[in-house]
Amino acid sequence: MIHNKAVIGGNVKLGEHVIIEENVRIGDNVVIGNHVVIKSGTRIGDNVTVEDLSVLGKLPASNNKMARKPNLSAPLLEIHDQVTIGCNTVLYSGSVICQGVFIGDLASIRENVKIGEESIVGRNVMVETNTEIGKRVTVQTGTYITADMVIEDEVFIGPCCSTSNDKYMGRRNYPHKGPIIKKGARIGNNATLLPGIVIGIGGVVGAGAVVTKDVLDYKVVVGNPARALDE
Amino acid sequence: MIHNKAVIGGNVKLGEHVIIEENVRIGDNVVIGNHVVIKSGTRIGDNVTVEDLSVLGKLPASNNKMARKPNLSAPLLEIHDQVTIGCNTVLYSGSVICQGVFIGDLASIRENVKIGEESIVGRNVMVETNTEIGKRVTVQTGTYITADMVIEDEVFIGPCCSTSNDKYMGRRNYPHKGPIIKKGARIGNNATLLPGIVIGIGGVVGAGAVVTKDVLDYKVVVGNPARALDE
Amino acid sequence: MIHNKAVIGGNVKLGEHVIIEENVRIGDNVVIGNHVVIKSGTRIGDNVTVEDLSVLGKLPASNNKMARKPNLSAPLLEIHDQVTIGCNTVLYSGSVICQGVFIGDLASIRENVKIGEESIVGRNVMVETNTEIGKRVTVQTGTYITADMVIEDEVFIGPCCSTSNDKYMGRRNYPHKGPIIKKGARIGNNATLLPGIVIGIGGVVGAGAVVTKDVLDYKVVVGNPARALDE
Repeated sequence: MIHNKAVIGGNVKLGEHVIIEENVRIGDNVVIGNHVVIKSGTRIGDNVTVEDLSVLGKLPASNNKMARKPNLSAPLLEIHDQVTIGCNTVLYSGSVICQGVFIGDLASIRENVKIGEESIVGRNVMVETNTEIGKRVTVQTGTYITADMVIEDEVFIGPCCSTSNDKYMGRRNYPHKGPIIKKGARIGNNATLLPGIVIGIGGVVGAGAVVTKDVLDYKVVVGNPARALDE
Repeated sequence: MIHNKAVIGGNVKLGEHVIIEENVRIGDNVVIGNHVVIKSGTRIGDNVTVEDLSVLGKLPASNNKMARKPNLSAPLLEIHDQVTIGCNTVLYSGSVICQGVFIGDLASIRENVKIGEESIVGRNVMVETNTEIGKRVTVQTGTYITADMVIEDEVFIGPCCSTSNDKYMGRRNYPHKGPIIKKGARIGNNATLLPGIVIGIGGVVGAGAVVTKDVLDYKVVVGNPARALDE
Repeated sequence: MIHNKAVIGGNVKLGEHVIIEENVRIGDNVVIGNHVVIKSGTRIGDNVTVEDLSVLGKLPASNNKMARKPNLSAPLLEIHDQVTIGCNTVLYSGSVICQGVFIGDLASIRENVKIGEESIVGRNVMVETNTEIGKRVTVQTGTYITADMVIEDEVFIGPCCSTSNDKYMGRRNYPHKGPIIKKGARIGNNATLLPGIVIGIGGVVGAGAVVTKDVLDYKVVVGNPARALDE
C-alpha cells in the first residue's frame, strides 16, 4: 500500500508488496525492492537503491528493564543521493545516511546515527544509537559498533570487531562512552575495543587484539591485552 | 491470509500481507507488523508487539550430516504478555518467551528455549536449543548463546560474546554441555566461554577473555586464557 | 508474481506473496515459503526447501569506495537437490550450493562461492565471494568466512569464528588471500584466522585463539598469538 500523501519522484521503480506510509518523500530514479516497508518520516534522495525485505524508518522500542529509554525527538530518517541499501536491513528513524553510502544485507542502524559520505557498512553490521561515522570509512562484515562512539574519516574496521561503551556492565547509572577511532586508523578482524579508549590517528590494532587502553598515533598494538609492538 | 480457525483477540492491529496459520491464538491489544508469518501452534498473549518481516513458530529442520536431529515433541511457541519482538526475527516452535521480554531485530531463538521475565535479547543474538535464560537477564547485540546452556537471573552478557557446548568439535557422540552462568554474573564484550565451564555468582569476565575453566563466585578474570586478577 | 516464462516442476508448494522472476527453473517436490523472492537466473533442483522471507539470486552491488568491483560473469545461482535454506537468508547469483546442503536462517552467501555436498552453513553465517567450501563441512552459527578462502572436506568450524584476507587492511592494492583450512581440521569458537595462513590436515585451533602463522598437520594451537601445545 502506498499512502496517498507520500511524495514519490520521477522514474521510481517499486517492487511488489511495498508499503510506503504517509509523510514519506522519495526522489527521482529510485529503485525499491519487493516487500520493503518505508515508515512515516523517511526521506530518500535521488538514485537510491533499497533492496528486498528491508525496513526503513523504524521507531525505537524498549522494555521495563532497559536503563536507556529511546529518544524520539529526531524522527526523520534521511537517506541522501546515491545510497545503496541491501536486503533484510533495518534502519531506524532519526539517522542520516550521507551520499554514496553502501549498507550491506542484514545490517541494522539505530536512531541518532550519522554515516558520512561514501562509507561502507558491511553485511550483518549492527550500529547502535548516538554514534557518528565519518567519510570514506569501511566497516566490514559482522562488526559491532556500539552507542556513543566516534569513528573519524577513512578509518578501516575489519570483520567481526566488537566495541563497548559500559565499563560497569549494566551495574551503574553513569554516562556511557564508546571508543573513539581517529582518522585513518585500522582495526584488524575480531579485535575487541573497551569503553572510552582512543585509537590515535593512523593507529593499527592487530587482528584479535583486546585494546584496554589508548593507542597513540601511528602505533601498532597486538595481543591480549594489546601492547605496542615496540614496547 | 488469516486462517479462519485462528483465534484473534480484541483491538488487534494487523499489518499488510500478514500470514496467520490455523491453530494460532492471539490475545488483546496486539500489534502485528507487515509481512509477518505466524505459524501453526503459536500462542501470543496480550499487549504484544511483533514487528515487520518476522517469523514466529518455525519448525526446526536438519540435513543428513547433523548429529542432533531436532526434537518436535513440544511444538507450541508461547509468547506471554507485554513481549516486544523486533523486525526480521525468526522464533522457533517449542519455546517460551515470558512476560515483558524484549527481542531485538534480526535475532533468532531455537526450539525448547525459555526466556524469563523482563529479559533482553539484543539485535542479531542467536540462541540455540535446550537453553534456559533467567529473569531480568541482558544479552547484548550479536552474542551467541549455545545449546544446553543455563543463564541465571540478572546476568549481564555484553555484545558479541561466544559460547560453545562441544569440546570434541563434532568428532564424538557425547552429551553436549554448554556453560552455566550463575546469578548476577557479568560477561564483557567478545568474551569466549568454553563448553561446560561455570561462571560463579557475581563473577566478572573481562572483555575479550577466553574462559577455559570455572570462575569462582565474585572473581574477576581477564586474558587468554582467562586468569583471576588476584592470582 | 510468478513470471510466465519461469519453469516450475511438479508438486511444488508455493507460499504466499512469492516472487519468481523470468529465467528461473524449479524442479519437483520443492517447497517455497512465504514472501520469498527468486531472481532471474536461479536454478533449483528437486526436493529443495526454501523458507520464508529469503532472497535467492541477488546480484552484487558496490559503491565508489570499494576496491573490488563485483564480477557479474557467472550469473546463475545453482541450488542442487535436497538443499534446505532457512528464513531471511540472502544468496547471491553466481554460486553453487551442492546436494544436501543446509543453510540456516539469516545467513548470506556471496557470488562465486561453491558449497560442497551435505555441508552445513549455520544461522547468521556470512560467506564472502570467491570461496570454496568442501563436502561435509560444518560452519557453525555466526561464523564469518572471508573471500578467497579454501575450506576442504570434513572441516569443522565452531561458532563466531572470524577470518580475513587483507593484511594491509584496505591500504594497498594487492591480491587478497584468505586462510586455507585443510581436510578434517577443527576450529574452536570465536577463533581469529589471519590472511593467508594454512591450517594443516587434522589441525586443531582452540577456542578464542588468534592464529598468526601456519599450523602444521595434526597440531593443536591455543592462545593469542596461537602456539602449539607442545612448544
